[in-house]
Amino acid sequence: MSEPSRAAPAATVTADALHRFAQDVFVRAGMPPADAAIVADVLVWADLRGVDSHGVSRITMYLRLIDDGDMNLTPSIKIRTETSASVLVDADRAAGPIAMTTAMNAAVRKARDAGVGLGLVRATTHTAALGYYTLMAAQEGMAAIALAASTPFMAYHGTRAAGVSTNPISIAVPGGARGPVVLDMATGVVARGKLVQARKTGRPIPAGWALDRDGNPTTDPQAALIPLPLGGPKGSGLSLMIELITSLVVSNPIIAGALEVAGDGTRHRQNGLVLAIDLRRFGDPEAFRSEVDRVIAALKALPHAPGVLEVLMPGERGSRAFEDRTRDGIPLPRAIVDELRGVATRFGVTSFPSAG
Amino acid sequence: MSEPSRAAPAATVTADALHRFAQDVFVRAGMPPADAAIVADVLVWADLRGVDSHGVSRITMYLRLIDDGDMNLTPSIKIRTETSASVLVDADRAAGPIAMTTAMNAAVRKARDAGVGLGLVRATTHTAALGYYTLMAAQEGMAAIALAASTPFMAYHGTRAAGVSTNPISIAVPGGARGPVVLDMATGVVARGKLVQARKTGRPIPAGWALDRDGNPTTDPQAALIPLPLGGPKGSGLSLMIELITSLVVSNPIIAGALEVAGDGTRHRQNGLVLAIDLRRFGDPEAFRSEVDRVIAALKALPHAPGVLEVLMPGERGSRAFEDRTRDGIPLPRAIVDELRGVATRFGVTSFPSAG
Repeated sequence: MSEPSRAAPAATVTADALHRFAQDVFVRAGMPPADAAIVADVLVWADLRGVDSHGVSRITMYLRLIDDGDMNLTPSIKIRTETSASVLVDADRAAGPIAMTTAMNAAVRKARDAGVGLGLVRATTHTAALGYYTLMAAQEGMAAIALAASTPFMAYHGTRAAGVSTNPISIAVPGGARGPVVLDMATGVVARGKLVQARKTGRPIPAGWALDRDGNPTTDPQAALIPLPLGGPKGSGLSLMIELITSLVVSNPIIAGALEVAGDGTRHRQNGLVLAIDLRRFGDPEAFRSEVDRVIAALKALPHAPGVLEVLMPGERGSRAFEDRTRDGIPLPRAIVDELRGVATRFGVTSFPSAG
Repeated sequence: MSEPSRAAPAATVTADALHRFAQDVFVRAGMPPADAAIVADVLVWADLRGVDSHGVSRITMYLRLIDDGDMNLTPSIKIRTETSASVLVDADRAAGPIAMTTAMNAAVRKARDAGVGLGLVRATTHTAALGYYTLMAAQEGMAAIALAASTPFMAYHGTRAAGVSTNPISIAVPGGARGPVVLDMATGVVARGKLVQARKTGRPIPAGWALDRDGNPTTDPQAALIPLPLGGPKGSGLSLMIELITSLVVSNPIIAGALEVAGDGTRHRQNGLVLAIDLRRFGDPEAFRSEVDRVIAALKALPHAPGVLEVLMPGERGSRAFEDRTRDGIPLPRAIVDELRGVATRFGVTSFPSAG
């Protein structure tokens, strides 16, 4: 049932070994060890959850951002605004996981006092898997929302060009015996990673997934370039609102500037917004947890659609992958193993797990 | 371009006349005049915006909720929890517009001090068009979010039954010369109103819109009963999270109880969540407004998809309808005119505009 292993893995490694490797690489690249540990944690968490597109496969991208000067290894992160219920974190181009965990920790702290805590993140880089941050808050007994705004590559509804990002949204709440519920979804019909994967396998993609470089609909995996928004105007509208309520609130607009310059000259940057709501301030957290389990049980008991073996909750596939992979290790495909070996060589890191 | 007039209207009435009529009806039904004015305002606003499904066509439904004892005409609305940045409004089954405007006014007030304000609404009824409340905040210089949670009638992904509601989400921000941007979307592929409309016209509906009463996919407008979620697991996941972060936070779960009882015995009820972010606390509101106009201009300048005359922003169609209908009046179809004449007779209200 779990999505992960489409091809036989070239290696299966433990989360610990992968974490050590990732941390070593970022330290060698010049990142303070505590920061490198956080980045490694967020990436390996995505691999454990089966979200391979947001795991260690991103290490090479992060290194490129460092090489290009887009990601700042030694940022001077500042709290620019602070109120009783909010902070605006100026991230100085810190790695996304550093900025987003800083903001969520602050939001959780604020929510303990004020019932609600808002963390705004200005000028970070790839925010990785948003579910990591909302789950952090859920584990503190909070309901949480996270948004991230990025550079345009998805079609805006009604156009034949990249106009917005697939800006994701995550919502999480604590649960009872079944654990937290964590939604983490992009505003596109399909993740960009799936287009990349189709290109590798050569399998045609469904109609309605993507446009080619000229803005024409295509099912050719080699031509597919611009993902289409979820539900047309709804997906691109939601994505635009995330840019407005995130990037524009922190005075760091991304979309307009990127669309105004001809060519692909825009630098990588992102902004983020996190929100935590302290359940204890508004009701009984234990009752909340049992009500979560109760609604899950009710939904799972509904008659299934044809061919469906099990009704799944948001994030359920991911938490099962997490259990499986924590026990059995993380399978890595050949292309990623080769990439990471190259990284190991470049940085003289010997900790890349060689287990086959 | 505007959606409204599909059939020749049976009557075209001014917003003022319609407002007077709606207010009179609710006052005769037993609602305090100030409350009746707010309900009338929210309903007529939806008609002005061209969202006919959420306008005065709902008066008969509201009267039924009153008759059934689900809507409380003289609620004792209480602030159950109050912190520096939040309120929990126990609405005592007040009409949705009363509860939601109370919560948004509180959220805006809180946000002025704390940067962010959260308003939670427990136990209200039909919350009407959420864009009304987020626009209220935008007009106060705030970015805003509104969510509403309701009884199940949409399919949960993977099932063949109604498991969640089409729980809507609205996000709005202030704008510059082009005015505010207001997204207001349901989490279903299609609004229930469109299924009702297809039933009336007899036109087949597109595949992927709805299931019949037995949970089978259908394109027959007479058989279509259960709308499908936007993008499968994304739409039903988002809808479920709205139930969790709204209804469960205010200790008034809706879905589980409704699914556990056999038959359709559940009473109408809703919960809501509104959030306001004061732009002044985090940046320059004037710069924000011009950046909104700038990104709109950039998106509108993108090459159009074939057959598309104009690239539209969230809520743009609605604000044009608002201008047109404020000037020209609100067209009402025959069925609604007949319904409202019936209402006028029942309550001895003579103010129903008879202009043809």
